[in-house]
Amino acid sequence: MAEKRPLILITNDDGITAPGIRALIKAITPLGEVVVVAPDAPQSGMGHAITVNDTLYCEQVTIDQGSKITEFSCSGTPADCIKIGVNEVLDRRPDLVVSGINHGSNASINVIYSGTMSAAVEAGTMGIPAIGFSLLDFGYNADFSHLLAPVQQITRQCLKSGLPKGVVLNVNFPKIDHAPLKGIRVCRQADAHWVEKFDKRTSPMGRSYYWLSGEFVNLDQGEDTDQWALDHGYISIVPVQYDLTAHHAIAQINQWPL
Amino acid sequence: MAEKRPLILITNDDGITAPGIRALIKAITPLGEVVVVAPDAPQSGMGHAITVNDTLYCEQVTIDQGSKITEFSCSGTPADCIKIGVNEVLDRRPDLVVSGINHGSNASINVIYSGTMSAAVEAGTMGIPAIGFSLLDFGYNADFSHLLAPVQQITRQCLKSGLPKGVVLNVNFPKIDHAPLKGIRVCRQADAHWVEKFDKRTSPMGRSYYWLSGEFVNLDQGEDTDQWALDHGYISIVPVQYDLTAHHAIAQINQWPL
Repeated sequence: MAEKRPLILITNDDGITAPGIRALIKAITPLGEVVVVAPDAPQSGMGHAITVNDTLYCEQVTIDQGSKITEFSCSGTPADCIKIGVNEVLDRRPDLVVSGINHGSNASINVIYSGTMSAAVEAGTMGIPAIGFSLLDFGYNADFSHLLAPVQQITRQCLKSGLPKGVVLNVNFPKIDHAPLKGIRVCRQADAHWVEKFDKRTSPMGRSYYWLSGEFVNLDQGEDTDQWALDHGYISIVPVQYDLTAHHAIAQINQWPL
Repeated sequence: MAEKRPLILITNDDGITAPGIRALIKAITPLGEVVVVAPDAPQSGMGHAITVNDTLYCEQVTIDQGSKITEFSCSGTPADCIKIGVNEVLDRRPDLVVSGINHGSNASINVIYSGTMSAAVEAGTMGIPAIGFSLLDFGYNADFSHLLAPVQQITRQCLKSGLPKGVVLNVNFPKIDHAPLKGIRVCRQADAHWVEKFDKRTSPMGRSYYWLSGEFVNLDQGEDTDQWALDHGYISIVPVQYDLTAHHAIAQINQWPL
């Protein structure tokens, strides 16, 4: 009896036509049966947004002529795509969800703003193993070709080993120009943050408005962080959990005279 | 020399006119100098979304005639409100951020979808102590009057004690009908999830669309969870962190032959 090929659901947050997801589809297709449910428009910075007060469209589309991949374009967020993909589109439970390849970093504190990772986390809450992939290059002409092998390697291993309960993977690739990737590091999230600057302008109608324009500041000197790995040419893998409880702080808050 | 009153920035995710934030402003005003920067429209389910590809408006408004509170209405998300509030609106760093009172639960897994909590987390990443408050009642005519005292009690204590680095508080109030609150419990986030149902309909133009409509499923039997506390008439406080690293999983993933 032939072994059933794993069912792999693919999404992203840059929209279904973004080069990053097209590269991811190419990398993942040899590993199983692939179905794509991805946003119909860019959703960067959407965090774990879901559509609760509006309707959702989700319709089958053909992006690449001649492609045999089943693809759906969804009007919602990355997390919506996972919810509707698993519950409405697929006829069986997927064995894995992969999200990306994001155009831009989701390392360090960026994980909390990441639509790419929110899709992976959403799958995780359903008990489905999931990986978010990101490349530290915002360009739409970014080169993804050298990422196909490591994406396949990490995905194959995840299909084989599974993931601990409540854990999904946040994989980031350094931006490299013809230098070979140095390898893979399993890391913790660097303790960095954004220092915001707002660019204040005036509209033609005389109304003030702002552009958000921040600077990433990493004060974490640890060599076990994702940011260190990426700065030194390594692929970073951070196991991410959605139990946000600061367990170490419970005892301290319990001392409060409430 | 008079002691400087603490500066407290208030936001929410239901919009600046929602009864929940009006109740929160009433509770917090006696405790310090209050400035409100809140979304101009409901932002429920927005998670940690930020506005990266669009402009932001942020303009001073008067919601309650005769009010002496300085208030700004912002076109962005709750996280945007914190970024622009701290960096553009306020002339000094706030001593505390409070968000809410949300109309609906942010306990258990709801924390990852919560705009209310994303505002608190955003403040946390800046090193500012922060609390998100939520009431388990979606109604716009929900009764917040009995919450003023516990909101003040928890906020006063937080101003006095501060919070551990990297930690903010997720406070949920049970929906009670004239029963007294039983007290306050410091808890961990219950391991619950949503089982989604999609209500598929057809538009007048003949196009299929969906409404997301899930059911909350709590399989966590622990009596140390927020869901248990709320189900038994207690106020729950969960210390929440934005280091999402599943530290316990690093060793296991490191065993992978990558």
